[in-house]
Amino acid sequence: MRGLAILGSTGSIGTSTLRVVASQPERFRVTALAAGNNLDLLEEQVRRFRPSLVAVRDAGAAEALRGRVPQGTEVTHGEEGRRRAAVHPEAEMVVCALVGSIGVRSAWAAVDAGKTLALANKEALVVGGAHLTRRAAETKAAILPVDSEHNAIHQCLRGETAAEVSRLWLTASGGPFRGWSRERLAAATPEQALQHPTWRMGRKITIDSATLMNKGLEVLEAHWLFGLPGERIRVLVHPGSVVHSMVEFVDGSFKAQLGVTDMRAPIQYALTWPERCASELPPFDPVAAGPLVFEEPDPQRFPCLSLAYAALSAGGAAPAVLNAANEVAVAAFLEGRAGFLDIPAVVEAALQRHASHPAGTLDDLLEADRLARDAAAAALPHGERCS
Amino acid sequence: MRGLAILGSTGSIGTSTLRVVASQPERFRVTALAAGNNLDLLEEQVRRFRPSLVAVRDAGAAEALRGRVPQGTEVTHGEEGRRRAAVHPEAEMVVCALVGSIGVRSAWAAVDAGKTLALANKEALVVGGAHLTRRAAETKAAILPVDSEHNAIHQCLRGETAAEVSRLWLTASGGPFRGWSRERLAAATPEQALQHPTWRMGRKITIDSATLMNKGLEVLEAHWLFGLPGERIRVLVHPGSVVHSMVEFVDGSFKAQLGVTDMRAPIQYALTWPERCASELPPFDPVAAGPLVFEEPDPQRFPCLSLAYAALSAGGAAPAVLNAANEVAVAAFLEGRAGFLDIPAVVEAALQRHASHPAGTLDDLLEADRLARDAAAAALPHGERCS
Repeated sequence: MRGLAILGSTGSIGTSTLRVVASQPERFRVTALAAGNNLDLLEEQVRRFRPSLVAVRDAGAAEALRGRVPQGTEVTHGEEGRRRAAVHPEAEMVVCALVGSIGVRSAWAAVDAGKTLALANKEALVVGGAHLTRRAAETKAAILPVDSEHNAIHQCLRGETAAEVSRLWLTASGGPFRGWSRERLAAATPEQALQHPTWRMGRKITIDSATLMNKGLEVLEAHWLFGLPGERIRVLVHPGSVVHSMVEFVDGSFKAQLGVTDMRAPIQYALTWPERCASELPPFDPVAAGPLVFEEPDPQRFPCLSLAYAALSAGGAAPAVLNAANEVAVAAFLEGRAGFLDIPAVVEAALQRHASHPAGTLDDLLEADRLARDAAAAALPHGERCS
Repeated sequence: MRGLAILGSTGSIGTSTLRVVASQPERFRVTALAAGNNLDLLEEQVRRFRPSLVAVRDAGAAEALRGRVPQGTEVTHGEEGRRRAAVHPEAEMVVCALVGSIGVRSAWAAVDAGKTLALANKEALVVGGAHLTRRAAETKAAILPVDSEHNAIHQCLRGETAAEVSRLWLTASGGPFRGWSRERLAAATPEQALQHPTWRMGRKITIDSATLMNKGLEVLEAHWLFGLPGERIRVLVHPGSVVHSMVEFVDGSFKAQLGVTDMRAPIQYALTWPERCASELPPFDPVAAGPLVFEEPDPQRFPCLSLAYAALSAGGAAPAVLNAANEVAVAAFLEGRAGFLDIPAVVEAALQRHASHPAGTLDDLLEADRLARDAAAAALPHGERCS
């Protein structure tokens, strides 16, 4: 039995993780859960999976939950509560699906404690990749990517030597606006952007797919996970999302991972790694999946991708600034306070202001994140405009 | 430096192998060559690669070659000559690209001597797979497939566990007659059948691609190489020949190997295994390669594939009979003595007659091969008809 701590259990990745766990009760035991304020769902999860520790956002939520869960379940809260879940002594593996900077600190705590980390939080690598991967090397903590693209690359790299990898090829669905002109993009609405053609995901990441910023953040993650420089990480638009990503080797051979577009597949791969086991997902049908097409992304219409490469190249705090400014811009777009093409403009403005902020510690980077949010808010068009 | 014995050096695979060797002179040393009667090309190869042993078909050819090669080159011939090349003490790896039953005995000799075998001869596995793989397990000889499909599967299996493999998916170009009706197929000419859409190969294998018998033989090879039963080896028609084959794992994940359609790629993979190194081939471009399509093969129009599955299921001498009868039928088709649809009919007739021939030894199987050739010849339409 593998003990699991699941951080962010009530979100999209967290609930999918628990579906995988429920399908293999003989393999996994949930020892700790951490979540935000969705207490109804969390209560249901606690009753079903019986963790010994549960962490919620704040003292009020902890107080409310305590009366609703089985006796003997310890309910804790806040930064320290999440840290305790991440280092839970009975957890061999920590699934980190918390969103934002709280995920950065939790991932760090898990790696610091030498846990195997199944990582779905992007910021842990985008913002803190240098620190996280250095610490993981010291504590011998494995980091297993849950993102379908990096998970695919992880699969393609099995049995291969890092020095024999030539390039990584991340695939991107291209999002709902793949064929749109800049003129149409300027007028795109949140409702249109939320119509993702292949994956069902949260709102923020769906908008990031539409701008290709999601793929830019994945380039940064791939850099830290697999140790390749930006010029050896390529992005291809692949509308079907059938090939989840590819690896090119020095001899010219490509290996690709293909499968259904359901996050339970990469989640299960991480949870059972290094083993594979039967899945309850429908089988993948390569005949029905085709035809498979690959296209070069268009940097003119989707400048967020170039901004991410620039941030990787600049290094230091630049990726943290990129990520934070993007969050602010996407939130504004979703609330009708900014247009679709304002997103890259706002990110670029924040990068120009704060990309060279100190980056020596995780605290430096979280400070850069805070400053970038202010700069992004200031760069929004008609800051006070309401939809 | 890796010592290489190259058996069948003047054929298509042999010359491609020597091009790879020539591109990496610091990696390889050719210690032995074996070939048939193309003495001009063989002389050129001996002068360039300086093997210490050369084996030719017969005493006459040996006598003719002796005066044309550098002093100190030992020239030998026949069965014993090929055997000596296959077990050459300075050769760590033996590339077996001899065609037909002489290839079976040479592959056996190499494996018997514990050499790493880079195998391009189909019959060694189709006819003698049970014996060859059992002996390889005893002598710890690795068998590395040179066929692009099996080579692709070998790559996809790196770092994976055999028990976690669900199915193998061999891709087939579908050949020049992919969309043809049975009526058109009945009148197909050798010239039409030799127009392969994606691969440049010898005449026999090109006809086998047109009938899909080539894929049927590959199903048999895959069975022996990777240990899966026929029902877990699938064939997909994939007209672009871009995905060279795929592996499906128990968790539903697929891994595919993609690349250029040049035999030097799988040959180099085998020669340098377990390492990969830079290649002189042009890089593979996934954007230009698409769109990628997969289709189910049509057993009505291409019955050779079903015959191969039936032979695998019957076991024993049936695959040897299938292979021998097919050779006779293809030769007759190429010479205008049989129609395209006579090929499966002739193979089926031979199978009905000799599939249950004893198969306890390699000699039994080579006897079944001989009987199948007689039966196939007898089953040809108008035995004496000339074009």
